[in-house]
Amino acid sequence: MPRKIVIVGANAAGTDAAAAARKTDRKSDITMVTNDCRGAYSRCALPFVLGGHIPSFEDLLVYPTRYYEMMKYDVRLETEATIIDKESKSINIADSKGKEETLQYDSLVLATGSEPFVPPIKGMDKDRVLPLHTIEEGIEIDRMIKERAKSAVVLGAGVLGLEAAVALVERGVKTTVVEMLPYVLPRMLDKEMADHVQSSLESKGMRIIVGHPVDELLGDDDVRKVSAAGEEIPVDFVINACGVRPNSRLAQKSGIAVGKTGAICTNPRAETSVRGIYAAGDCAETVHLITHDPVVPALGTVAVRQGKIAGINAAGGYGICPGALLSAVTRLFNFEVGVTGLNEFFARRSGFDTVVGRISSKTRADYYPGALPIRVKLVVETESKRIVGGQIVGGEEVTQRINALSIAIQNQMTVHEFAKADTCYAPPLNETWEPMVLAAEMAIRRL
Amino acid sequence: MPRKIVIVGANAAGTDAAAAARKTDRKSDITMVTNDCRGAYSRCALPFVLGGHIPSFEDLLVYPTRYYEMMKYDVRLETEATIIDKESKSINIADSKGKEETLQYDSLVLATGSEPFVPPIKGMDKDRVLPLHTIEEGIEIDRMIKERAKSAVVLGAGVLGLEAAVALVERGVKTTVVEMLPYVLPRMLDKEMADHVQSSLESKGMRIIVGHPVDELLGDDDVRKVSAAGEEIPVDFVINACGVRPNSRLAQKSGIAVGKTGAICTNPRAETSVRGIYAAGDCAETVHLITHDPVVPALGTVAVRQGKIAGINAAGGYGICPGALLSAVTRLFNFEVGVTGLNEFFARRSGFDTVVGRISSKTRADYYPGALPIRVKLVVETESKRIVGGQIVGGEEVTQRINALSIAIQNQMTVHEFAKADTCYAPPLNETWEPMVLAAEMAIRRL
Repeated sequence: MPRKIVIVGANAAGTDAAAAARKTDRKSDITMVTNDCRGAYSRCALPFVLGGHIPSFEDLLVYPTRYYEMMKYDVRLETEATIIDKESKSINIADSKGKEETLQYDSLVLATGSEPFVPPIKGMDKDRVLPLHTIEEGIEIDRMIKERAKSAVVLGAGVLGLEAAVALVERGVKTTVVEMLPYVLPRMLDKEMADHVQSSLESKGMRIIVGHPVDELLGDDDVRKVSAAGEEIPVDFVINACGVRPNSRLAQKSGIAVGKTGAICTNPRAETSVRGIYAAGDCAETVHLITHDPVVPALGTVAVRQGKIAGINAAGGYGICPGALLSAVTRLFNFEVGVTGLNEFFARRSGFDTVVGRISSKTRADYYPGALPIRVKLVVETESKRIVGGQIVGGEEVTQRINALSIAIQNQMTVHEFAKADTCYAPPLNETWEPMVLAAEMAIRRL
Repeated sequence: MPRKIVIVGANAAGTDAAAAARKTDRKSDITMVTNDCRGAYSRCALPFVLGGHIPSFEDLLVYPTRYYEMMKYDVRLETEATIIDKESKSINIADSKGKEETLQYDSLVLATGSEPFVPPIKGMDKDRVLPLHTIEEGIEIDRMIKERAKSAVVLGAGVLGLEAAVALVERGVKTTVVEMLPYVLPRMLDKEMADHVQSSLESKGMRIIVGHPVDELLGDDDVRKVSAAGEEIPVDFVINACGVRPNSRLAQKSGIAVGKTGAICTNPRAETSVRGIYAAGDCAETVHLITHDPVVPALGTVAVRQGKIAGINAAGGYGICPGALLSAVTRLFNFEVGVTGLNEFFARRSGFDTVVGRISSKTRADYYPGALPIRVKLVVETESKRIVGGQIVGGEEVTQRINALSIAIQNQMTVHEFAKADTCYAPPLNETWEPMVLAAEMAIRRL
């Protein structure tokens, strides 16, 4: 009898789990259950549609409908998974018309994703206050801008908050970002790096208030003003970008262990506390490669990697997730911001003694017109001399530098070894001395 | 008494040796001897001035004159080093007016660079046949183009040959590249990757003849035609880009060991066969990190790294060159080509049994407008499963991917480990699944 695999969730983790399961066991029965009305789409790209870089929200659909048919998935759209019975290995589902069904499974993959966190601020329930987490919300914000919304506040200066704020500025909306913590991108960067990002954004016309919570959203039905930092900012709408929380309700009520992070506990095979039930993506924990703490990266890259491993194992194969370094990158207007591993703040908070190496350089040979500034910061653990983190802010070529640093960290490379890296160069493409290597030299001087 | 350090050569390796020596021993007497009429300049950038990307050849000077004064170097321009006496630790020099002098040294660094190889082709001595190795030659070629030279042949389809040919096409010169070997960039790429480069270049109007030697250069005093592949190509000038040869004459006639490569033998401290005499850059051997063979990279990046180590050791410090992976990159029109480690051809020639992983992908999310094609090829050694080489051809973001691969190879990373790399992504900057990781997956399937 073919293996029955049920996957709850059909976004990044869910579809990669399904594809890996199909590849591992071509004859398995794969059922995908999603409460969405469509298949997988790129949530990360919502701000870039809003900003006008991508023509339409529909472009974000990862696969055409016939892909799901070709892969022989039984896809249940607009269907809620209500409860799992671990003993009988079954899961109850209910479609939008209320029709219930019980599915038997041999393996189950939970890829239930995350939900926007709604901070406990008075007035958050007003109209025209919404997150940017779904295509529907993207369409709604787009509609408000087309109907001449002139000003907005974005709550939160994380990656999504800043990407959304950039999109609004690009669309001509007067935009203020309000961040409770003392600098932008506080999960990614240390303050001095974040300050460069902030001033770049401000130079493009974005207003940013850091170190102040929002006190209240004011208005009648619709939000009209945001009260923060002692002033009342008039708004036509508000985007809530205060981060996401793992959606682990189904696991929780079905007796599957959930960690302190709020996400589902997993082992390196992406298996939960219940044998045969796997979890992947934003709803699942993984291990931080340096601190060894459970973390919830909430990153598309981690979701697809973990989803793949969950799918392989769910289909009777063998795969291991090594953990994550939380490597992340974004582009804000015309500059790029990336991080991997621990920043100085989180390293210290995790008890590591560190030195840092910082360098300002250029992205091309100094004499080559168009060279853009780039700043690299490396964080080095003092006993092992290993690189444990890197942050880069620059005009171009940040993404793959972050990947290079991530690979160095994954290999537990010391800063001394890294300073000898065999890097490449050509005048239009880099300086002779690679900036990351120069940052390593700066760290070595402080050791 | 201050340590006397003499450095022969004042380009990439020489000036980085001097700077490292000065940093290591602030009180040393540092003398730099160069037969050039100016200090260091970026040889690698000559084609990009010719192509009009950099305003002037003078822009390529790395330091202003006052830098050399500030560093307290005694710089002898237009001066030839004629012979070294190892016993008395002295070196004879002669300036352009014939004035001779003998310098005593405690440490000596040979950074005598390389010279264009002149192939044994009839007619190579005609006028208007020249390499692109010096600023003077750059100025001369520029002059010929300004005086309405309409057509040219470039001998050799290595990096310099193609960069020069691109510059000529950009300047409106009808350009034919003739390469004896069966594909372009034969030192860097395998044939199937090189073929992509060739067709890209041809689509921009460059003519390329591969697999044929040049038979003869025809004309009276000036070259008029190039005979190759059974035809006579009319030309106004010819650029000789048949590679470079290490300039090791001074070492050779002074009894310092020179290897089979024709370059000066060095140990990991960049020391030659004679204690106290160091060599760095294009005139010196280093060790290939994978084959362990002596190699002469002829790369600016290796020159500065080796120069630095030579300078540190010459000044009484301690530094080690780990060897080289020959990581290299260039941009030809609007696409980039990079390599690190061994390609499939050289791996096989060195006796390695390999499998390869190839992938065609894009430089941004598929739905993000402006995504450019990128091709990655990984070479994996079958017993250790280690990655031993990578080649990338693409529209953008090649350089730092080569650096990432180089770091992976430097860490002797297996393809299995590499396939788990914690890469980063954002829609405008990368695909969710990093193309290098996909190439690793392809290689794993073949193992």
